Amino acid sequence: MDRDTADNVRRLEIDGATLLRQIERLGEIGRERDGGRTRLALSDQDKCARDQLVQWMKELELDVKIDPIGNIFGILYGEGESCADALMIGSHIDTVINAGPFDGVYGALSGLAVARAFRNAGVRPLRPLIVAAFTNEEGVRFQPDMMGSLFFTGGIPIDDVLATRGIDGAFLGEELRRIGYKGETEPSSLVPADYLELHVEQGPVLDSKQMEIGVVENLQGISWKRIEISGTANHAGTTPVSMRRDAGVAAARIVVFLRELALSSEGTRTTVGSLRFSPDLINVIPSNAVLTVDIRDPESARLADAEKQLLRFLEELRTKEGVELSVKSLARFEPVRFDEELASIIEDAAKKRGYSSMRITSGAGHDAQMLARVAKAAMIFVPSRGGISHNPAEYTPDELLLQGVHVLLDVAAGRLLKGGNKTEV
Amino acid sequence: MDRDTADNVRRLEIDGATLLRQIERLGEIGRERDGGRTRLALSDQDKCARDQLVQWMKELELDVKIDPIGNIFGILYGEGESCADALMIGSHIDTVINAGPFDGVYGALSGLAVARAFRNAGVRPLRPLIVAAFTNEEGVRFQPDMMGSLFFTGGIPIDDVLATRGIDGAFLGEELRRIGYKGETEPSSLVPADYLELHVEQGPVLDSKQMEIGVVENLQGISWKRIEISGTANHAGTTPVSMRRDAGVAAARIVVFLRELALSSEGTRTTVGSLRFSPDLINVIPSNAVLTVDIRDPESARLADAEKQLLRFLEELRTKEGVELSVKSLARFEPVRFDEELASIIEDAAKKRGYSSMRITSGAGHDAQMLARVAKAAMIFVPSRGGISHNPAEYTPDELLLQGVHVLLDVAAGRLLKGGNKTEV
Repeated sequence: MDRDTADNVRRLEIDGATLLRQIERLGEIGRERDGGRTRLALSDQDKCARDQLVQWMKELELDVKIDPIGNIFGILYGEGESCADALMIGSHIDTVINAGPFDGVYGALSGLAVARAFRNAGVRPLRPLIVAAFTNEEGVRFQPDMMGSLFFTGGIPIDDVLATRGIDGAFLGEELRRIGYKGETEPSSLVPADYLELHVEQGPVLDSKQMEIGVVENLQGISWKRIEISGTANHAGTTPVSMRRDAGVAAARIVVFLRELALSSEGTRTTVGSLRFSPDLINVIPSNAVLTVDIRDPESARLADAEKQLLRFLEELRTKEGVELSVKSLARFEPVRFDEELASIIEDAAKKRGYSSMRITSGAGHDAQMLARVAKAAMIFVPSRGGISHNPAEYTPDELLLQGVHVLLDVAAGRLLKGGNKTEV
Repeated sequence: MDRDTADNVRRLEIDGATLLRQIERLGEIGRERDGGRTRLALSDQDKCARDQLVQWMKELELDVKIDPIGNIFGILYGEGESCADALMIGSHIDTVINAGPFDGVYGALSGLAVARAFRNAGVRPLRPLIVAAFTNEEGVRFQPDMMGSLFFTGGIPIDDVLATRGIDGAFLGEELRRIGYKGETEPSSLVPADYLELHVEQGPVLDSKQMEIGVVENLQGISWKRIEISGTANHAGTTPVSMRRDAGVAAARIVVFLRELALSSEGTRTTVGSLRFSPDLINVIPSNAVLTVDIRDPESARLADAEKQLLRFLEELRTKEGVELSVKSLARFEPVRFDEELASIIEDAAKKRGYSSMRITSGAGHDAQMLARVAKAAMIFVPSRGGISHNPAEYTPDELLLQGVHVLLDVAAGRLLKGGNKTEV
């Protein structure tokens, strides 16, 4: 590393106080009585958080661009006004219902903190840095999840996106226009060479192993399905059990089957997060039940096998319970391997800082898995206490949050000041 | 039977056309697009049906009385203005959500048809006839079910009744006042000597056996419980199955356990009609689940044993799934044996009319089970096609409906004209 570059790297420093204050500020938007916050994609709360993020980008004199799905980009240009060979640091700022403060927000604002480090030091990168916040990563209001990064990487046509209907009946396209985030920027013009995402683990591994940095090697594949079961509503007291077509019992058998499937598997995780009966009355046999299925596995073959086992089980249920079943796929993502070169750079950076680290698999879906389709991508995890996430109790101590950003800064600096040469970071 | 009495009995005739028209008319109140109707207890729709019933009672010059829980009584006096030694014919006119046309309505309006037969024939009974419509038999909006007859027979204090809160948050006492059915009549002044209730079976037995009249011998005991399960909300993708406290899986195991319990029992019926998850999101492990349990059995000991087995299972779940459980009893009624003397009178009446009949157990709860605490009580069933009930598809052909009323009339006439002497009906 030549003397100038070394000086520049030394001068780059994370303004930890500002970062923590910004995380806290965003966490106040959509805040609820019980301490959680809800900023569903393209809601009024999401708009408020977006406006705040854009304002902070402009304070750093980043060039703000919005694409047709509302993804937000803040560009710190390198030599010249081109975005070729860029490093993108991104995540999301939408949340689930009653969420914690860090999921997504931490990664997006850490990207901003890296840009701030360059501004404060008066250092211009050799390559452009793009700070990104992708639309609807959570997939709670609109499905599939990771929709913004999926669109950005060419995985779904804009017309399908805009026609997507939310759980509240709203159309995504109309909501985008309503909150003023239907942009014109052509995604292909911002596709980066490298992508980094810093995130709280949302799982218990780092915390239980007392590790400070997680070097994410790969990410589970995800299969989301919606199953609707139709039976016959009838009087609870008079219909012999043998003559029933009970949609509720069929649904319960699916929930139990999926749990047993996960228990008997090496790495398959299954969840039924939503289940609704109708007519939902104490003395009426349920005529209808709708449930969601979330299956994840780091191994592609095992994920597909779990789906096959489920479909076989549903076939048996048809006859066993005498119900009708319809299955709809809501989302399907193959497992992802992140860039090995970037992973080892992250490992080195953590070591140089004296932080403990380990290789880890991401159980959650992240925008990084979409970016891995078009760029060298990697993720850095910091511990999440007890692995709790999607819950107001989500917690990571400030010190660990800042350690993660330091690693992110070091890796970014190496890429931005040496034109991608990793050897001397 | 002396000549006058015999003449009187001969002159008594059911006006079938009027009865069927009245059933149809009440069935229009609370009608919904899909063909069902909803008249939850003390709703505007229930008030409308009550007003109609009272008008019809007054057209027959019955003395209309309302008690403090809104039970409606229409009295056709015998010799003198006393209600001692009365025969009561009753049922209810409230419905479940999206109900069929006959449940309850058929019995209440058949009582009116019997009173009409006396009026049309100009025959005065020796004993008073009371036509009754009891409040909130269904127990959908307010629990427990059969609340009106439970109160009427001294099973629940008026203050508890009035303080009951509905699923919509409304207080029963306020709703009674709102719709103008908070009466003053002292229930004890109307307690009858005999009680008859005519009802569609709401089960498949008579229909599948091609029988015309069901002579109800006994009625299942009922246990209603509400179970709330608390676990921990967490990210669906990152939390190892072994570390989860999944309220949804625990709830599903309860549903499956209850089904298996019923399948392995002689006469126990179990139903989970209502089940709700929260936060009810596809990628969040349910932190909370609330379900209702409906257990019925004609044998008291077996009912109690089923409840014990459930509680034992819940104890195991606590440890197995690591969840918290709370169980609340919503209603508990012992099995009932109806009056054997009345049952055989009903059997004889059916035979004299040339209708096929069989002894049967009622799977559903009925107001008759409450009246059996204070009077000689019996029930007459007519077939319900396919046993379908609590459903717009509930159906019984007019001819079978009228056969049931003829049997009711003959039994009532025997009681009302002979002072309770059954031998010569």
